[in-house]
Amino acid sequence: MNEPQPDVSWLSRATSAFGRQGVLRPFRLLRHDSENFAKRYVSDWALFNQLILASAVYVFFTNLLPGITFASDLYVLTGKNWGTIEVVFSTGLCGVVFSLLSIQPLTILGVTGPFSVLAENIYSLCTDSFHIDFLSFMAWSLIHSGWMHWLLAIFNAHDWTMLYVTEFSCEVFSLLNSIIYFHKAVQELSRAHATLSFAAFLYAIIGAVGTFLLALFLSSAERWPPIIHRYFRMGLREYAAAISIIFFIGIPYVGELRDLDKGTLYTSKHAFKPTKPGRDHFYVRFWQLPVAWIFAALIPGAIITTLFFFDHEISSIICTIKRYGTRKPTGYAQDILLLGTMTAVCGVLGIPPANGLLPQAPLHSESLMHNAEGEFKAEVILDRHGIERVVQQPVQRVHEQRWSSFLHAGAILAFVAPPLQLVLGLTPTSVLAGLFIFMGEQSLSVNPILQRTFWILMPPAELPPLPQQIKSYWPIHTYTLFEIIVTVAIFIVTLTVAGPAFPVLIIALVPFRLLAMSSIWNKDVLRYVDRWACRDGCPEGEDAANGALASTVPPAGTSSPQGDSEKARARVG
Amino acid sequence: MNEPQPDVSWLSRATSAFGRQGVLRPFRLLRHDSENFAKRYVSDWALFNQLILASAVYVFFTNLLPGITFASDLYVLTGKNWGTIEVVFSTGLCGVVFSLLSIQPLTILGVTGPFSVLAENIYSLCTDSFHIDFLSFMAWSLIHSGWMHWLLAIFNAHDWTMLYVTEFSCEVFSLLNSIIYFHKAVQELSRAHATLSFAAFLYAIIGAVGTFLLALFLSSAERWPPIIHRYFRMGLREYAAAISIIFFIGIPYVGELRDLDKGTLYTSKHAFKPTKPGRDHFYVRFWQLPVAWIFAALIPGAIITTLFFFDHEISSIICTIKRYGTRKPTGYAQDILLLGTMTAVCGVLGIPPANGLLPQAPLHSESLMHNAEGEFKAEVILDRHGIERVVQQPVQRVHEQRWSSFLHAGAILAFVAPPLQLVLGLTPTSVLAGLFIFMGEQSLSVNPILQRTFWILMPPAELPPLPQQIKSYWPIHTYTLFEIIVTVAIFIVTLTVAGPAFPVLIIALVPFRLLAMSSIWNKDVLRYVDRWACRDGCPEGEDAANGALASTVPPAGTSSPQGDSEKARARVG
Repeated sequence: MNEPQPDVSWLSRATSAFGRQGVLRPFRLLRHDSENFAKRYVSDWALFNQLILASAVYVFFTNLLPGITFASDLYVLTGKNWGTIEVVFSTGLCGVVFSLLSIQPLTILGVTGPFSVLAENIYSLCTDSFHIDFLSFMAWSLIHSGWMHWLLAIFNAHDWTMLYVTEFSCEVFSLLNSIIYFHKAVQELSRAHATLSFAAFLYAIIGAVGTFLLALFLSSAERWPPIIHRYFRMGLREYAAAISIIFFIGIPYVGELRDLDKGTLYTSKHAFKPTKPGRDHFYVRFWQLPVAWIFAALIPGAIITTLFFFDHEISSIICTIKRYGTRKPTGYAQDILLLGTMTAVCGVLGIPPANGLLPQAPLHSESLMHNAEGEFKAEVILDRHGIERVVQQPVQRVHEQRWSSFLHAGAILAFVAPPLQLVLGLTPTSVLAGLFIFMGEQSLSVNPILQRTFWILMPPAELPPLPQQIKSYWPIHTYTLFEIIVTVAIFIVTLTVAGPAFPVLIIALVPFRLLAMSSIWNKDVLRYVDRWACRDGCPEGEDAANGALASTVPPAGTSSPQGDSEKARARVG
Repeated sequence: MNEPQPDVSWLSRATSAFGRQGVLRPFRLLRHDSENFAKRYVSDWALFNQLILASAVYVFFTNLLPGITFASDLYVLTGKNWGTIEVVFSTGLCGVVFSLLSIQPLTILGVTGPFSVLAENIYSLCTDSFHIDFLSFMAWSLIHSGWMHWLLAIFNAHDWTMLYVTEFSCEVFSLLNSIIYFHKAVQELSRAHATLSFAAFLYAIIGAVGTFLLALFLSSAERWPPIIHRYFRMGLREYAAAISIIFFIGIPYVGELRDLDKGTLYTSKHAFKPTKPGRDHFYVRFWQLPVAWIFAALIPGAIITTLFFFDHEISSIICTIKRYGTRKPTGYAQDILLLGTMTAVCGVLGIPPANGLLPQAPLHSESLMHNAEGEFKAEVILDRHGIERVVQQPVQRVHEQRWSSFLHAGAILAFVAPPLQLVLGLTPTSVLAGLFIFMGEQSLSVNPILQRTFWILMPPAELPPLPQQIKSYWPIHTYTLFEIIVTVAIFIVTLTVAGPAFPVLIIALVPFRLLAMSSIWNKDVLRYVDRWACRDGCPEGEDAANGALASTVPPAGTSSPQGDSEKARARVG
């Protein structure tokens, strides 16, 4: 009787985890996803309109042009193994495949900065330390990463990882992306300063600031006085970045500016074949790598898997947050399966793999927002005379379809053709700097951290009232400051030799938020400023209780009266 | 009985005109003005606050800097007789005297572009054709002009001239000023292009656009989210132009820009004495001019009188229009008397005379606008949800006082001191170009022609409803187009050799409006778009009936919701 019973609960728990309702039950999410996929697929292609085309054009530029700057870094730092054509090929190919087969077509793909930094580190290891062929080793890393993705998809990794992701990580990651984009703009301009004449550098400033301001000005077209037809102003808003980019690509070729030296995007002018001289086909003889190195490639494979899994999931989450009003079923396991497959394919093709792009993916959603027909919600607003009124506001939703994803990716894929590469080569880097500033600003303007930073700076009398449970603004202010400090710290890490480790830091924020931060900040405060990012995993009530915060975030380029009404809503809600 | 009686009615009419109630009754207006002057004088000095100081700083820059550009033209084109110090001296002296003795301290004075052009023509006549001393001849022209001003004041010229001035002339004159300022900005930049290196020219563009945009951005500070205290944002708005000018004066002296060649304002670096070498004192030996030439000087004297009388009266009218809500008594005869006196004094001193400045005078009023304490007016607005509501709007009024006029003029007068002249000489001409754009924009943004041009471009469905008597928007559109065509035509004249005649054209608009235009446009249309500019002379009823138009003109830098409410007001009124 006193004999201790062997504790087998861990065993039974582990077994039950694989059971019918178990977290690890293989293919559980995948099966679910494939049902959802079938439900939405036909309707995804049935919708097409002008706004979707405009969105495709916008995403085309914001995906392609930054990608090419990474390419010019890659060209130098991977010994010419990868260049513009590889990046364009990968972005176009993965984009087209995802637009056809992924469950969430709002997530757009591209070759990301973090992966570029990782690849550059792997290249220098291969050549300087291992003395092996970079492309073969990378191919194996990506093949390993491929099956690791499959395992994550099969064993429902989304459920036991993303369940713990709160808006905290998303906001920090999003702010980090804004900072990185602003920093890249400064880098482009200081490169212009180092390599060009002083006059050309001064023009580069005009070009960059001009691209940004024109795009910003046009993106406010709907709020202009109605001097031109509303549809035309809508068009200007929708194509703001594209018009500005094309305009400022043209300017340096006009008049005296033509004679000025200029930095332009680096593109390959030769035929559709890999950048590296001597490499003629888009495949890698990966089977020739010695077996020991094939096993060694498991390590970079795991790092790439961590990065891609987190990056892609966060992209998908951010581009379907509540504010975008998505209604079609979504899913993560199928997309991770597809991402693994395409990662392995890219490895075999000898091109860099693409994954969910930030901040472009949420900007894609942003550009698809429209007033949902016939849908209104009652809303209490404070007008500028301080009078509370209930008004019927149109509900804003994103167009959930595959065309914008498919068209922009298809157009990028077309740019592997040499004549189009020549056209790309005309783009001055100053335009790119301007686009970086614009993307950073667009992403920052919808980040709740910005709104809460305003709260820190505001005179206390003007702050909106808090829910009863929260007594003071101080914990909210410290929370916001903490987010900013964490983001800046991670940004500084990306500038050091420890740079490639930064995905690990971002992921470490998840347990840190759950364990450490819960003991610093009051539960009510955390509930007010932070909610679970993955709505599937958290109870509706909690989500609704925290909805107030989401509404305080003004949409990109919101005019102040709207901002006031949002504030008023928060005051009431 | 059949013998015709001699018609003596003209004689009796002429006699009665000089009678007790007669239009020409000498000193009638002057007596009236001196009573009004006494009524308001003490209270004019009793008011002082921060906004008034800000206004003085703003007017200081917008008066001084453009004046110096005219000075650099004068220096070249009057054989060095007049330069910076003469212009600064005249502006400061006349400004201080007017701030102390004029009845309307909102009107500010400076050496104007039209007078500069006139003086340059007189100089070339004196040297090339007449072979006489320019300064003596100019002194007599100004002395003649002086007593002509007195006669106009004594015989109540304001009553029988300005009675016929409608908003048509004021709007055209104001638009002409905006165009001239934009054109001067382009001229400054093309001068930079011609004389500086390409890099310096590109910087000049950055400096000019930067000065304009920073001033424009800061002038919207009150509509920012409340991230900093409202008083601080008010300060930013009030000092917008000054902050921007000082910032961009500093920039070219920083870093690598220091080594760039730059165009700066021309100022005299020597002691407080006239620009012309050999001239040591600020007086002219005018009595040495041959008598024949003294009489000949009557002709330029009359032209100067026409120009000054019209220019100064229009400046005073525009800076006290209904929108500014002035309540203190005003007057014109006393100011014309004073203007004549100062014109003659300037002639004897050998410096160019100053008169009412456009568009600076109304910008001065603009900068003094504030919410009148305890005053509200009921107003029907359409909010953005299309619901009509009556709200209590604060009444906006101008601060009517003498400090802003006195302080800015006193500061300008101080700048005749050589050390301060040195400081002025640091100002890059690109900053001036930016200031010109800003002033042109500020003046244009409150011009009713702009609002009605928007009406032409707007889709007909979005136009505000018209009063019942007016059937269609077409006559209003043609009226607006006619105004624009007339303005552009006069602007083209200012560019030709007939340039100095342009004041005559402006004055000719007054009878043209009364005679020709009344037969082209319907009376109701003219009443809707055009009202008498001089409110003293027109019946209250007419003024009130036409008040609707004034309210459709959004104040400078109005945000769109306010614009909507203004539109709504017009719809209701």
